[in-house]
Amino acid sequence: MEDLLHRAEILMEALPYIKQYYGKTVVVKYGGAAMTNEALKESITSDIVLMKLVGMNPVIVHGGGPEITSFMERLDMPVNFIEGQRVTDEATMDLVKMVLVGKVNKELVSLVNQHGKFAIGVSGDDGGLIKARKKASHVDLGFVGDVDEIDRRVLDNLIEDGYTPIVASVGAGPDGKSYNINADAVAGEVAAAMCADKIIFLTDVRGIYADPGDKESLVPEVTLDECRRMIDTGQVGSGMLPKVNACVKALEAGVNRAHILDGTIAHALLLEIYTREGIGTMIRKETK
Amino acid sequence: MEDLLHRAEILMEALPYIKQYYGKTVVVKYGGAAMTNEALKESITSDIVLMKLVGMNPVIVHGGGPEITSFMERLDMPVNFIEGQRVTDEATMDLVKMVLVGKVNKELVSLVNQHGKFAIGVSGDDGGLIKARKKASHVDLGFVGDVDEIDRRVLDNLIEDGYTPIVASVGAGPDGKSYNINADAVAGEVAAAMCADKIIFLTDVRGIYADPGDKESLVPEVTLDECRRMIDTGQVGSGMLPKVNACVKALEAGVNRAHILDGTIAHALLLEIYTREGIGTMIRKETK
Amino acid sequence: MEDLLHRAEILMEALPYIKQYYGKTVVVKYGGAAMTNEALKESITSDIVLMKLVGMNPVIVHGGGPEITSFMERLDMPVNFIEGQRVTDEATMDLVKMVLVGKVNKELVSLVNQHGKFAIGVSGDDGGLIKARKKASHVDLGFVGDVDEIDRRVLDNLIEDGYTPIVASVGAGPDGKSYNINADAVAGEVAAAMCADKIIFLTDVRGIYADPGDKESLVPEVTLDECRRMIDTGQVGSGMLPKVNACVKALEAGVNRAHILDGTIAHALLLEIYTREGIGTMIRKETK
Amino acid sequence: MEDLLHRAEILMEALPYIKQYYGKTVVVKYGGAAMTNEALKESITSDIVLMKLVGMNPVIVHGGGPEITSFMERLDMPVNFIEGQRVTDEATMDLVKMVLVGKVNKELVSLVNQHGKFAIGVSGDDGGLIKARKKASHVDLGFVGDVDEIDRRVLDNLIEDGYTPIVASVGAGPDGKSYNINADAVAGEVAAAMCADKIIFLTDVRGIYADPGDKESLVPEVTLDECRRMIDTGQVGSGMLPKVNACVKALEAGVNRAHILDGTIAHALLLEIYTREGIGTMIRKETK
Amino acid sequence: MEDLLHRAEILMEALPYIKQYYGKTVVVKYGGAAMTNEALKESITSDIVLMKLVGMNPVIVHGGGPEITSFMERLDMPVNFIEGQRVTDEATMDLVKMVLVGKVNKELVSLVNQHGKFAIGVSGDDGGLIKARKKASHVDLGFVGDVDEIDRRVLDNLIEDGYTPIVASVGAGPDGKSYNINADAVAGEVAAAMCADKIIFLTDVRGIYADPGDKESLVPEVTLDECRRMIDTGQVGSGMLPKVNACVKALEAGVNRAHILDGTIAHALLLEIYTREGIGTMIRKETK
Amino acid sequence: MEDLLHRAEILMEALPYIKQYYGKTVVVKYGGAAMTNEALKESITSDIVLMKLVGMNPVIVHGGGPEITSFMERLDMPVNFIEGQRVTDEATMDLVKMVLVGKVNKELVSLVNQHGKFAIGVSGDDGGLIKARKKASHVDLGFVGDVDEIDRRVLDNLIEDGYTPIVASVGAGPDGKSYNINADAVAGEVAAAMCADKIIFLTDVRGIYADPGDKESLVPEVTLDECRRMIDTGQVGSGMLPKVNACVKALEAGVNRAHILDGTIAHALLLEIYTREGIGTMIRKETK
Repeated sequence: MEDLLHRAEILMEALPYIKQYYGKTVVVKYGGAAMTNEALKESITSDIVLMKLVGMNPVIVHGGGPEITSFMERLDMPVNFIEGQRVTDEATMDLVKMVLVGKVNKELVSLVNQHGKFAIGVSGDDGGLIKARKKASHVDLGFVGDVDEIDRRVLDNLIEDGYTPIVASVGAGPDGKSYNINADAVAGEVAAAMCADKIIFLTDVRGIYADPGDKESLVPEVTLDECRRMIDTGQVGSGMLPKVNACVKALEAGVNRAHILDGTIAHALLLEIYTREGIGTMIRKETK
Repeated sequence: MEDLLHRAEILMEALPYIKQYYGKTVVVKYGGAAMTNEALKESITSDIVLMKLVGMNPVIVHGGGPEITSFMERLDMPVNFIEGQRVTDEATMDLVKMVLVGKVNKELVSLVNQHGKFAIGVSGDDGGLIKARKKASHVDLGFVGDVDEIDRRVLDNLIEDGYTPIVASVGAGPDGKSYNINADAVAGEVAAAMCADKIIFLTDVRGIYADPGDKESLVPEVTLDECRRMIDTGQVGSGMLPKVNACVKALEAGVNRAHILDGTIAHALLLEIYTREGIGTMIRKETK
Repeated sequence: MEDLLHRAEILMEALPYIKQYYGKTVVVKYGGAAMTNEALKESITSDIVLMKLVGMNPVIVHGGGPEITSFMERLDMPVNFIEGQRVTDEATMDLVKMVLVGKVNKELVSLVNQHGKFAIGVSGDDGGLIKARKKASHVDLGFVGDVDEIDRRVLDNLIEDGYTPIVASVGAGPDGKSYNINADAVAGEVAAAMCADKIIFLTDVRGIYADPGDKESLVPEVTLDECRRMIDTGQVGSGMLPKVNACVKALEAGVNRAHILDGTIAHALLLEIYTREGIGTMIRKETK
Repeated sequence: MEDLLHRAEILMEALPYIKQYYGKTVVVKYGGAAMTNEALKESITSDIVLMKLVGMNPVIVHGGGPEITSFMERLDMPVNFIEGQRVTDEATMDLVKMVLVGKVNKELVSLVNQHGKFAIGVSGDDGGLIKARKKASHVDLGFVGDVDEIDRRVLDNLIEDGYTPIVASVGAGPDGKSYNINADAVAGEVAAAMCADKIIFLTDVRGIYADPGDKESLVPEVTLDECRRMIDTGQVGSGMLPKVNACVKALEAGVNRAHILDGTIAHALLLEIYTREGIGTMIRKETK
Repeated sequence: MEDLLHRAEILMEALPYIKQYYGKTVVVKYGGAAMTNEALKESITSDIVLMKLVGMNPVIVHGGGPEITSFMERLDMPVNFIEGQRVTDEATMDLVKMVLVGKVNKELVSLVNQHGKFAIGVSGDDGGLIKARKKASHVDLGFVGDVDEIDRRVLDNLIEDGYTPIVASVGAGPDGKSYNINADAVAGEVAAAMCADKIIFLTDVRGIYADPGDKESLVPEVTLDECRRMIDTGQVGSGMLPKVNACVKALEAGVNRAHILDGTIAHALLLEIYTREGIGTMIRKETK
Repeated sequence: MEDLLHRAEILMEALPYIKQYYGKTVVVKYGGAAMTNEALKESITSDIVLMKLVGMNPVIVHGGGPEITSFMERLDMPVNFIEGQRVTDEATMDLVKMVLVGKVNKELVSLVNQHGKFAIGVSGDDGGLIKARKKASHVDLGFVGDVDEIDRRVLDNLIEDGYTPIVASVGAGPDGKSYNINADAVAGEVAAAMCADKIIFLTDVRGIYADPGDKESLVPEVTLDECRRMIDTGQVGSGMLPKVNACVKALEAGVNRAHILDGTIAHALLLEIYTREGIGTMIRKETK
């Protein structure tokens, strides 16, 4: 009987959050270790189904670097990175697309659809979703691109038709060529274009730590201003910096809340969204 | 951390049930002790809000006998019952309506609406919802009625507009007179008219017991056929019989599942619908 | 034959008014003697049905003071008024709600629905229609409130679904408590929130008299400016003042025309709206 | 005051008829003297506007024989009739179309639209409304046709868009040629295709007389069966026979009620539809 | 095989123009010799059907001067023109309407509808389409009018219902009288009211010539500014001036492109719209 | 000028076919040499855009065998065929999906979208489009499947949203595994599920020859019955047999017309659909 009451309490704890995000768009950047572990994949995809069923409109964005590298190695193709960017010639781009769109994306779609006919996978070409331009850089990175424009109509249509869009981070250049775009950047731009309420980055760390050396110092919630200050004072470690910067950019573009979560915790999305304490760091636009 | 995993498990356990009842109509007959205890009222009304938010269409039906009696006593009006039916002259009927529609119904609406603008209360007159006829009886019970016809358009409209209808069991006679109708009967007729997937009776007992004397023998699930057999063999105690009969009738009218729950357990609705074991007895139309 | 021509003339006289108010919202404050006389109730409710059928969207608002007092007396409850306001403790508020919502409102709904499935009754709790706040006052009047906000979505939904809403003047406080609000005030606020074209007060007097002592001096039409002047110069008797002030307030809030009618004339609504001369006083926003 | 009551009574008398015909399609065959007298034209067109505003969907069908003849005479064209049918060569057909579509129809549209933007005039060509075939006859009547098929989509579209269609009785042959069709026949076929509730023939007589010689013997209402009997027994005079036959045919095709009215009585439509006694003869499908 | 490739090329050449005008409104002023030659009528009307089918929304506007004059002569009515305007007394106006609405318009509708149920003919009275006022003039021209206001709702409704509206240039005065309006002017005003993308004048000349004496000097495309300069420098011959001025006015009112075509070339509309070179002169708002 | 007339004629020749297929669904099986030649790819994709713009709803289905084989060889993976079926182990299936979904499909989408935001690519997983089951076979072919069920909702949604779906022939097994399905079979099943009007197979031959040895004996049109007879009498060569059988099956499943075209002719789709003679063989369900 006590167990029953405990169960009821946990379910009821979700109620205010379900109300709060009802009908809201939430962009989830799916990445890190959660993309390679089978159990975690199932846990994340069932979280997405639950989010959909309780009234949210999740939009999933993913990349897939490790799988690309592993395939390139199987094909004896040279793998080069310059300043963290994959040098992408035409043959590499072909492979990037095949892996992201034909393998990673469809695997996610398939896992979500084990629960019903929920997901449709798309990439930059589909309905003109992601218009890309070549990334400006002092060295030629080949087909590495930036987002030039998101056409949200495709995503709006899929959502209205009752589907959850799963987006592979491949952009379509004006010349009909494809471009490899950083998935964090795509997620941020999609969130901005959709006027999303929330963007969630699934990473391999718990969130922002007040003292990076102290595992007990996780910051559950911080305002945008405080977050900027933490960046300026060097409190945010260099490993975390790119994600935190992506969060800041999304908030500046109009998103209300950005989350950094540890995707290796089972049901990380569920726990962050539907429990009082959450499990990662939430950055809010407004001051506390 | 372990606690987190446990919470996630409980939330995930709800997923298949949320999917199963998505977009389905569920009629809840609200009654018994759950109507008089403040904490239980709040627990039940927040369950209803959660049901609505996760995609169900709950329709609540209630009576309110004890409150009627208490008001009649305050007014020194004679309270007479014949074979369990309240003898209802015109003055009594006026009072029945005032208590059910003006007090009990609005209190429920108000509690649900603490969570948002969810509920609208209606009774038999509104939009011609419940057409009543005088109950055939060998003694004159006055304005005690049976359901002649449910006009589901009112309920459909409210549901399409995003509201949860809360129905007081007062019927409108062809002569413009109101009739006092048993709330179990109204719930059953509403469920049949709405082609509801489920009807739930909130009572003061746990459900059907295989052995009425043995508190450990609660039957969690039974088919309609088995249930009929239990009635025939006298296994269903006389106290339970009316509720069980109402369940049988609803199933015969096309409803898929009927539940008998103990409304005095906090969040009884939630626990019955969204956990694997449930807490009461479910009667299924189809054979196991 | 002459009679035929006369009938045709009267019907045709209605044509320009039917055109003028087609699709327009008209708020009717129902009150006074018209609420207690059976024949008048039938005459008014059939007028409302006719208004609906010829294309108007009537919204009815009512109170019910005399019935409340009579019930309180039957219950031996003390009836206190301070400066015209009923002192309303919790028990009184319960009774107010029971009488207005469970008796007066449903009786009106039932009378209108003798003509078809036209009306649905609502009060402040339903769909969050009337948000109330405690009335500021130098003495504590208990649960006497002012309108804090009207949520017109409920009324819009009902009208779109083809129904005529009938509103009992009970408000819902932020604390879940109910408040007794003056029905004239509710009618005015509803008219303002709905951007109504017209508000009509059914009273027990014919309208405004140029000379209160002279029954022949009824003013059929007056502009808002002239009306203010009549108030300032004391031409409007103290009995009429509250109604006239309610009219002025409604016009200032954006309603185009406010009428004061004698509800004891059979079919007062019909005669005022659909005949050239009308039977009461109409106050227009614009100058003549 | 008494006058007021009388006015209210007349308006209220209309209520049950407004309810009964709400949303129903009523085909009016406009013809006879009512088409040539200016005052009658205005009276009829304002009746049509009133019918529209109180919720009916009137569809007007007209011919225009006398105007055609008068124009032909001005052009010195030979006017020939064989067995009541106008012999219609190609030049005559051109003129018929010009007069019916370009003059009579637009005049009616213009008169109705004095009251607002209500009417749109159409003829057989528009949207494929009236498909005609050459009338089978033992003598060649030229471009005299029968209705082959009515395409109600045009009329449905106009009605949904809020307009009242006014139909000139010109049909379109499969060869692109136009055909002159009897307007009574077009009205009957339109009523059948629209599943109209009512068809009304405006004529120059009061209706059917029990005793054609006795002006006091007008039959206000008769069933289809009785009507057939009156035809069989020769009770229906030869002058009335074609109209009565058109009524019988419309009822057999599914229309519920057919009326024969004297269009020379001002507001004949109004008086027939919205008063208890009516002014002409109504033939009902069902037995009394 | 070569022929096949040639056919494919011609069809493909249409592709960019079909894309460009997809869903756009194009007003076609139909006039000149193309209105009297049977083969040209068929060619133009089949062009209109093709335009409709490939996604454009054509709206056709026509006058019909020559047919009016010929009918007036048959009726021995005096035909007077003052400064190019037909003096139009009441009898003449009647005839104008009969010819334009009852003959020319219906003939066009009939020709288009040989291909399906595409067209509906309307004139100024229908749904209040063209409100006219008497033309200001130093001599009394009678019922000659200017466009006072276009009510595009009628045209929008017909287009939404899937029809192509064909408009006769007859206006409705505020007094219920009809007015004869120049069809070029009606076309221009309709194009402006509809925010049309294109207006096309079918005339009897090829377009604007750089050198009016040199048949080889046809100007295929010109900007509005250049066009104004050509008018100012007298390069536009007096015969062309009214049409060119109508184009300039339409462009100033917001239309993007105005065309002058020779309607005596078979399928002139098709060739101008769907081939690269076109066959007439196009005046563009924007500078080259 | 003559050239102009010729162009107009060719455009007009398309008119009856545009009318005939307006709003109809046409499934195009894209394959053969047309998939590897860049110029042909552009010609086919622009044909598809034209079909869409003139009112058809094309649905494209493709496989991509040769590209799969070439990638497998680059990866030194063994390529085995048994009775024309590719033996598909899990690694091969991964590659099949990557090539079909991530390369071939997106290339087609990209080419179509050079003309606008028209196409969206999908495969069996998306929205549960293609449910597959393992192909029954006497040898184990691994992940080679048959269509178990097509869920047309995905395609319907995309078409309603204005897109052209491009379908890769990969099916989703009940176990979450993907299956390689013959694209002709998928095209046929999609056509049947969509109740398509037409299915077109782009192949490398002109169509059916009456005498396979005589290139002049191409049969432009044949009924289903005649076609069956040609199969029975061995007139259809073994090379053609599979395609012809696929056509027969599609017709038996309810499709009205099946075409076999030579996809190496530029704009083959256009020429077959919009010219009188066509360029391939059309098999009709009904007898001639």
